[in-house]
Amino acid sequence: MKIDFDGILNSRRLAITRALSFVENADNLDISLTDALFKYLGRAYRIGVTGPPGAGKSTLVDKIIDYWRGLDKRVAVISVDPTSPFTGGAILGDRVRMGRHYADKNVFIRSMATRGNHGGLAIRAQDFADIFDAAGYDIIIYETVGVGQVELDVAKAADTTIVVLVPESGDDIQAMKAGLMEIADLFVINKADRQGANQAFAQLQSMLEMRPRVEGTWPPQVIKTSAIKGEGLTDLTSALREHQTFLERHGIIRQNFRDRVSAKILTHIGEQLSSRFWTAEKRGLLKKALAIENIQDLVPGKVVQTLLN
Amino acid sequence: MKIDFDGILNSRRLAITRALSFVENADNLDISLTDALFKYLGRAYRIGVTGPPGAGKSTLVDKIIDYWRGLDKRVAVISVDPTSPFTGGAILGDRVRMGRHYADKNVFIRSMATRGNHGGLAIRAQDFADIFDAAGYDIIIYETVGVGQVELDVAKAADTTIVVLVPESGDDIQAMKAGLMEIADLFVINKADRQGANQAFAQLQSMLEMRPRVEGTWPPQVIKTSAIKGEGLTDLTSALREHQTFLERHGIIRQNFRDRVSAKILTHIGEQLSSRFWTAEKRGLLKKALAIENIQDLVPGKVVQTLLN
Repeated sequence: MKIDFDGILNSRRLAITRALSFVENADNLDISLTDALFKYLGRAYRIGVTGPPGAGKSTLVDKIIDYWRGLDKRVAVISVDPTSPFTGGAILGDRVRMGRHYADKNVFIRSMATRGNHGGLAIRAQDFADIFDAAGYDIIIYETVGVGQVELDVAKAADTTIVVLVPESGDDIQAMKAGLMEIADLFVINKADRQGANQAFAQLQSMLEMRPRVEGTWPPQVIKTSAIKGEGLTDLTSALREHQTFLERHGIIRQNFRDRVSAKILTHIGEQLSSRFWTAEKRGLLKKALAIENIQDLVPGKVVQTLLN
Repeated sequence: MKIDFDGILNSRRLAITRALSFVENADNLDISLTDALFKYLGRAYRIGVTGPPGAGKSTLVDKIIDYWRGLDKRVAVISVDPTSPFTGGAILGDRVRMGRHYADKNVFIRSMATRGNHGGLAIRAQDFADIFDAAGYDIIIYETVGVGQVELDVAKAADTTIVVLVPESGDDIQAMKAGLMEIADLFVINKADRQGANQAFAQLQSMLEMRPRVEGTWPPQVIKTSAIKGEGLTDLTSALREHQTFLERHGIIRQNFRDRVSAKILTHIGEQLSSRFWTAEKRGLLKKALAIENIQDLVPGKVVQTLLN
């Protein structure tokens, strides 16, 4: 791997860009990147922002960048899945919305293409974040369109996960049940100037209150914002800080770090097991088995067993 | 596995329902289901319908059901990812929209919960379809919200894939590039009574025409519909039949069947490799490695190598 580690550690933009492209385009995951940067990791605070298309995530992220820049923090934004067929259009708009930050050398906004390598998607997103972490970015924001499981995985790799909804999400809130409840640390009802915001707020609050309180765990909060009008943003950033403090006090930041390393190791081993197993011989055997004249004479379970033995 | 195979083959609803639940809830994929049903598979025609939320997929599926019922074909619909936090609400609406078919004993509409097992999601969806295939359903429709990679995988497992867009998808069409183009056999611009339908149509057509023609491959078609008004449906069903004929003439249906078996075998082997590898001893070693006092002294790549050797 021809990665300019020194350049990354010195936060040189070209070195960072090249490393990101390497991660994005490599056919296989490569753990040597992690190894080389590992002792410089763990300084950044990682925030995940997820929600359905049209919830106003980008405008919200734009405001979150403002907040951290006001505290002189360096911010990196990783937009996951911009090449997804249905969200691509929105990203062009996002560029415009977050445009003014593009000129700020302490803000790095980068899309991550995901086509074709969804197996390692969450890990590649983590590699992106690790590069920014090693380069001294204080805040790393993952922005994902949270409609697929893979996208949720990315969001889960953050220290604080913000789920953005709109007042019209009422029905969705009813249907959310466990899934989102488990990953969201903060719920934001954005576009709260619209009708139904108070109902959505109350509905979500009462659902959260029905959950049993577990000592030492964070009770998710609900915040109403209108990112575009600049309303409710102080509530949001206060809640963010409160959650961050909570994580530090309970040693959760450190545990998250270990959990991410663990996930990375598991994924790499999975890839290695697969590439070691699928020798030319094994691939030939599978091909031969599938070339059977009458495919319905095949017993798939037997093929699996034969290949494994 | 306590599956009533005889009941499935005789298309008994209770036997089918129980088998589907088994597939949905099993912690691990089980290939013995495939083995038991294998020689009864390959009779059904599998259609994938995917597109962004709000494109009118369910109404369209409802009309496609009508069409096949008019030809006295038995139809099964598999709705993938209904428990996804953001699409859950819509499904309740879908139930209403497709409601009149619920009373028809030759139509089987079933949601597939996906939470937590996305590794095998596409394969589980295929197992669902196989159960319906063995039970003598002629037409199997996968309905997915195509925003994540996993959802696209499901759509790809169909013989004919329909991508549903709306006139407002203009920007998205620009951004689609390779991804969707590769999976869509038919593009439907639904809600075509809305403004911009002709532009979206022309835009999509010209993009498709720019692609090089490959002999023996299907040139994707674009159809305008207004499912709710019943417009353009004959164009759609004609195109469906045309594609089906094309697939049969070129032996693609048989090849698709082989490809699906191959994907299933690959996934099962992947799961087996993983479960064989992660013995209690290996899990203990990983746990011990991660318990290192100063996590930053860890070299993740070394842990991977140690575990693999």
